Amino acid sequence: MTFSFELLHRDGPARVGRMATPHGVVETPVFMPVGTQATVKGLTPDMVRDAGAQIILGNTYHLALRPGGDLVAELGGLHKFMKWDGPILTDSGGFQVFSLASQAKITDAGAKFRSHVDGSLLELTPEKAVEIQQQLGSDIAMVLDECPPGDAPPEVVRRAVTRSIRWAERCKAHHTRKDQVQFAIVQGGTNLDLRAECAKELVAMDFPGYALGGFSVGESPAAMHAALPTCAACLPEEKPRYLMGVGRPEDLLAGVASGIDMFDCVMPTRNGRNATAFTYAGIVKLRNSRHQRDPAPLEADCPCYCCRTFSRAYLHHLFRVDEMLGPILLSLHNIAFYLRLMRDSRRAIVEGRFADFHAECLAGWKRPAPAA
Amino acid sequence: MTFSFELLHRDGPARVGRMATPHGVVETPVFMPVGTQATVKGLTPDMVRDAGAQIILGNTYHLALRPGGDLVAELGGLHKFMKWDGPILTDSGGFQVFSLASQAKITDAGAKFRSHVDGSLLELTPEKAVEIQQQLGSDIAMVLDECPPGDAPPEVVRRAVTRSIRWAERCKAHHTRKDQVQFAIVQGGTNLDLRAECAKELVAMDFPGYALGGFSVGESPAAMHAALPTCAACLPEEKPRYLMGVGRPEDLLAGVASGIDMFDCVMPTRNGRNATAFTYAGIVKLRNSRHQRDPAPLEADCPCYCCRTFSRAYLHHLFRVDEMLGPILLSLHNIAFYLRLMRDSRRAIVEGRFADFHAECLAGWKRPAPAA
Repeated sequence: MTFSFELLHRDGPARVGRMATPHGVVETPVFMPVGTQATVKGLTPDMVRDAGAQIILGNTYHLALRPGGDLVAELGGLHKFMKWDGPILTDSGGFQVFSLASQAKITDAGAKFRSHVDGSLLELTPEKAVEIQQQLGSDIAMVLDECPPGDAPPEVVRRAVTRSIRWAERCKAHHTRKDQVQFAIVQGGTNLDLRAECAKELVAMDFPGYALGGFSVGESPAAMHAALPTCAACLPEEKPRYLMGVGRPEDLLAGVASGIDMFDCVMPTRNGRNATAFTYAGIVKLRNSRHQRDPAPLEADCPCYCCRTFSRAYLHHLFRVDEMLGPILLSLHNIAFYLRLMRDSRRAIVEGRFADFHAECLAGWKRPAPAA
Repeated sequence: MTFSFELLHRDGPARVGRMATPHGVVETPVFMPVGTQATVKGLTPDMVRDAGAQIILGNTYHLALRPGGDLVAELGGLHKFMKWDGPILTDSGGFQVFSLASQAKITDAGAKFRSHVDGSLLELTPEKAVEIQQQLGSDIAMVLDECPPGDAPPEVVRRAVTRSIRWAERCKAHHTRKDQVQFAIVQGGTNLDLRAECAKELVAMDFPGYALGGFSVGESPAAMHAALPTCAACLPEEKPRYLMGVGRPEDLLAGVASGIDMFDCVMPTRNGRNATAFTYAGIVKLRNSRHQRDPAPLEADCPCYCCRTFSRAYLHHLFRVDEMLGPILLSLHNIAFYLRLMRDSRRAIVEGRFADFHAECLAGWKRPAPAA
């Protein structure tokens, strides 16, 4: 097995690490662009690589529905299918069952639900989640967990924790693929005692990595930022820590400051498709008519293809006339920005000035970003 | 002025030439991908270049409406605005006024119409068409012509010819830009006597290049194929000949066989967005379930990024789940195919075997392509 994680630098709780996977090395903290349906929306794998991506995420729920785990396996696995030769992390599908599928019924056995595509009745058990991810052949697989909504009552959150722990055990027992590791997922909402209890149980099972789940499901950013240091500290120092489905640039920095190593989020591509760009100077809305005659690039010191090549006036024009190239270029820039933010964070940590970097970024983002 | 056209090889009426423009040299016969709104739909300029494009087309009607000729001029011209540093040909806007705008009223003075975007009342005169194209700064501008529908009665076609000749005179008189040439447009529908008469008048005005207009407006492909040799022969041997808005691969080859040098058409991108690919083996519809498990590339010997990289199964998946990357990749392939078809035609002409190449292509396209 070629998976390893090594901590190289610390700056307070923030850390720089090196994660080796069967498909290459990942420098952490890292942002993983989301390739839900075996494609990072609007971008070729070459563009994703050129934007600086080291590892991407695939969504097991979507891929299980279409094209199906068996078809991906038959065609040589997800890397070969979508022609991304770097590392891939797949989620377990659980989160999407709870958020996208209809009529989801959760029992200790697993989840029964109707496909959001064709309404067909499907079942996702811990064992099934393992099997599909083994078919996909991702480098990092996630255990199946139950992710209750952010406003769920305490007893629902507690039951989800108990169930997620049992499901993690079953996932571990069922996992056989040698070129893939499994990460466990800590639930517990904003109840820090419950988070600690969940983490303790999962840490005892000795997974190669740990994730914090349930932090992008409706709680306030402030509540998440407050909970992150304690939650991260419950996880083993020497293993990678992944904050699932988060978030805005300021949320990533709050995570890094708390000792988180890995992030994923659809915001860069989703906002990019909607003419909204992330920059070190804050949010830029390209449909705004103030960009109409502006020959300047979106972000002057950004090394991405969009900023190196085109003016704001051109980007404004593309969105105004509904041309595909607008969403393409802004998705590319936003992913490049998130990756640059993590690269700059790593450098700041190495140089022992992450707190300053963090504060400078927040000062630059005076205009509030849209909620996730 | 840096415009010139040189004939290098002949093979029957088919010819290979070399057209020099202020933004570079074009080998003919050439296909010009259409960048209607200052973008070839779904592709970056890098992708268009990598697909093999030598020259692209911009639509004056669309660009005049949005972002406007003055804005493009202020930002340094169309090349700089859209970051295409190769040659650009712009049409005059006339065809779109007749096909897209509403309530078009044509008089000898010009066309009055309502914008298809916001309904505003606009006017396009020969002089205005020249001015906008001078603002855009294309390498090759087209004169304003009147393009009646394919089923127009003879008197309407005759009046359009008379008017187009007068408008060509006015365009020539109004043109001042030294780094841009104007091509004239021969109208006359499928009335070959009228075509010859129109060509004779325009040839007497000594334009640097000539186009055949009105050949993609509803007449049958067979009628067009029958008319092309005679129409092409009415044009000066030593000047480039451009068949506007045509067409399917077989229409391009019929044009080349008749001595046409330049083509443009939205079919490669439009059909690509609709999951339909052009290949030497005919039309391939990627939504068809027979591609679902096919690991083969779309076209084995195609050198484009799509065919070098992805399987038919993956392309099928992208269209099935409505991912943007499907239209992107198939637009890229289709443009690359059209460009390859012209490259292979040039080689066949140089080697004196164009008739054989033409026949082989037609034999390969057993399945009929959709009409333009």
